[in-house]
Amino acid sequence: MKKYKDLSPSPRTIMTPGPVEVDPRVLRAMSYPILGQFDPEFTGLMNETMGMLRELFQTENEWAFPIDGTSRSGLEAVLTSVIEPGMKVLIPIYGRFGHLLAEISERCGADIVTLEQEWGKVFDPEEVIGAIKREQPAVVAMVHGETSTGRIQPLAEIGRACRELDVLFVVDAVATIGGVPVETDNWCIDAVIGGTQKCLSVPSGMAPITYNSRIEQHIMQRKRIERGLRDPGEPLLELGRTIRSNYFDLSQLQDYWSAARLNHHTEATSMLYALREGLRILLEEGLEARFARHLLHERALASGIEGMGLELYGDPACKLPVVTCVAIPDGVDGEAVRAMLLEQFSIEIASSFGVLKGKIWRIGTMGYSCRKQNVLQVLGALEAVLTYCGSSVNKGAAVQAALVVYREAEAT
Amino acid sequence: MKKYKDLSPSPRTIMTPGPVEVDPRVLRAMSYPILGQFDPEFTGLMNETMGMLRELFQTENEWAFPIDGTSRSGLEAVLTSVIEPGMKVLIPIYGRFGHLLAEISERCGADIVTLEQEWGKVFDPEEVIGAIKREQPAVVAMVHGETSTGRIQPLAEIGRACRELDVLFVVDAVATIGGVPVETDNWCIDAVIGGTQKCLSVPSGMAPITYNSRIEQHIMQRKRIERGLRDPGEPLLELGRTIRSNYFDLSQLQDYWSAARLNHHTEATSMLYALREGLRILLEEGLEARFARHLLHERALASGIEGMGLELYGDPACKLPVVTCVAIPDGVDGEAVRAMLLEQFSIEIASSFGVLKGKIWRIGTMGYSCRKQNVLQVLGALEAVLTYCGSSVNKGAAVQAALVVYREAEAT
Repeated sequence: MKKYKDLSPSPRTIMTPGPVEVDPRVLRAMSYPILGQFDPEFTGLMNETMGMLRELFQTENEWAFPIDGTSRSGLEAVLTSVIEPGMKVLIPIYGRFGHLLAEISERCGADIVTLEQEWGKVFDPEEVIGAIKREQPAVVAMVHGETSTGRIQPLAEIGRACRELDVLFVVDAVATIGGVPVETDNWCIDAVIGGTQKCLSVPSGMAPITYNSRIEQHIMQRKRIERGLRDPGEPLLELGRTIRSNYFDLSQLQDYWSAARLNHHTEATSMLYALREGLRILLEEGLEARFARHLLHERALASGIEGMGLELYGDPACKLPVVTCVAIPDGVDGEAVRAMLLEQFSIEIASSFGVLKGKIWRIGTMGYSCRKQNVLQVLGALEAVLTYCGSSVNKGAAVQAALVVYREAEAT
Repeated sequence: MKKYKDLSPSPRTIMTPGPVEVDPRVLRAMSYPILGQFDPEFTGLMNETMGMLRELFQTENEWAFPIDGTSRSGLEAVLTSVIEPGMKVLIPIYGRFGHLLAEISERCGADIVTLEQEWGKVFDPEEVIGAIKREQPAVVAMVHGETSTGRIQPLAEIGRACRELDVLFVVDAVATIGGVPVETDNWCIDAVIGGTQKCLSVPSGMAPITYNSRIEQHIMQRKRIERGLRDPGEPLLELGRTIRSNYFDLSQLQDYWSAARLNHHTEATSMLYALREGLRILLEEGLEARFARHLLHERALASGIEGMGLELYGDPACKLPVVTCVAIPDGVDGEAVRAMLLEQFSIEIASSFGVLKGKIWRIGTMGYSCRKQNVLQVLGALEAVLTYCGSSVNKGAAVQAALVVYREAEAT
């Protein structure tokens, strides 16, 4: 018997806040033979991907390309390229991923100022704007959709204030991009980081970003051409201002993504195929239709959860449409329920982090996983598991409540 | 007509020093549906991949896992995690990628000392050992196989000296891993970085690394638990020694790859499938058989090139078996030849960098691309293109010379 068996992953219904099921068209794209990184056919695909990313980010920015790494590589690329040691960075935090922005910024040597909001809520934009006026940071970094708590932060007013006050505004839209509107230009966001493995339904491994000329001007002052590509006589920039990463140096990466194609890394071919296909699918569906689809299935799922007699967690006024957080009923072992869902039904839902660990389940309705079949399956299975575990639920009500939502949507 | 067409990449014969053709079994592996990152089936695949990486790296190290990014992400992860600002790092350079090690180390704040060898040669180990004794660095970082010049550096003596002198020895084996022997433990290498898109024939997008307990002990002194995962009361490590990257922090990454599975990034599922399959193929072939295959096709290619009347570039005593550098004949436009090979024959070979730009072609014989069909094709096509361009070559001799090598190999 072979020590390492043939790959044969079990089919899963993945209803977490990411990674979610990958669209089969994207899986197929990854199975195509690769092209060399400077093959004109491949650089053509790279350019097309940039064009589609501009549509996704709703921007006229020149720069829109993926970082070759998982979502947090995109966060680190932007923050490392923008933040110089000692720079003041304001970070409003309302969940785990706000802490991550603070963590990365701190490691870049930023002088960070954090605002913290109780988990389950978001900030009143006026509170953030007040802090910007008071603290006068060079950069504001915040999360658009916080998957740890299932909340979404309104950004337009904060963006306008940043622009007026000449502050750079960096937004983590990893969870929202492709599922809910992210209006880069209209909201005056200077740099946006998206994720692939959530509402785009592309595997984890790339992080699409965009940034405007305000960011570009800033990072160009920190640019240094790589040793080994430099002319011998060329003067060195003092290391003081140099971006402290080579891999995440946006001033080098944009040369690689420009017509100059200055050698940096070797682009991740199959992941680029995947991202391009995911973007094609998204543009074929259309952004508006896609956002409407995410809202419909959220409504069906939430109706089902409430119909079952369970409680939704968090302030409903700022619920993130693509993640539904469910309070784990008293006396129920949340992890045992998740394990049974996976083992018996091949359905995956998520737990949460920090103070919410053991308190809520998180159910995603993202991208290709965001469809009727999956919503009905997860509701039926969750009811069955809770019943099996002796928890009292309104039997049969969840799926019926969801079906009502779907019937009403079809009627309009 | 659709703005963005269906993906349909042209079939290519890729004979560059990477990225090279991907094994069809690896392409198929990427087309399988994904699993959630904490799904026990997926963490099982992660553990298997670690086991296979240990065999690849010929090591008993506990830590052997991929960094989610292209090859240089692996270099940066190791160097950023190891190098503290002001630390003395010795970097012997004999081609472009030695400069990259210096570039990354410099950005980490290292006090770097470089040795430079003329391109086309490598170092006498005694020269490096002398420099180690003289400079007393904390770290020596060097390239095993330099694709820019097609040379390979003997490492065993340098590794032994580093161990005796208590210096950390970091090796870039991106080009060699899986194609020529890399004996991590026998050669006393403390950290090794491999590449996927060369001799493993997996797409670019992951960088397998391994490191031993000497490295681990050092980086654990620099460890800081991520904000948002920390207990509120936990004391902070002074930022001074903290690893200045979150994405590349090996002390966090090893927690993610350990049984604790402490959340960090979301593992790149499809790329992990690809790496696992690439490693399975490698172990089925066997390391020794694989190394012998790379030597055979190198011999056939080199015989063909010389038979054609072209000259090999560089010191033959340290030729890298997986890259053959060919001097571009006087009066021949190397880029025009490459373009015609691609456009007419769908064959890709590479140019080089810096002082070698326009002087040599580089032909890879790596992984799945390293096979008889490809060697014979590239020889026949190169002869045809040179003849078409009016260059004088020994007509018909290249393919015949290669066939003789294959016949002799079959006879033994």
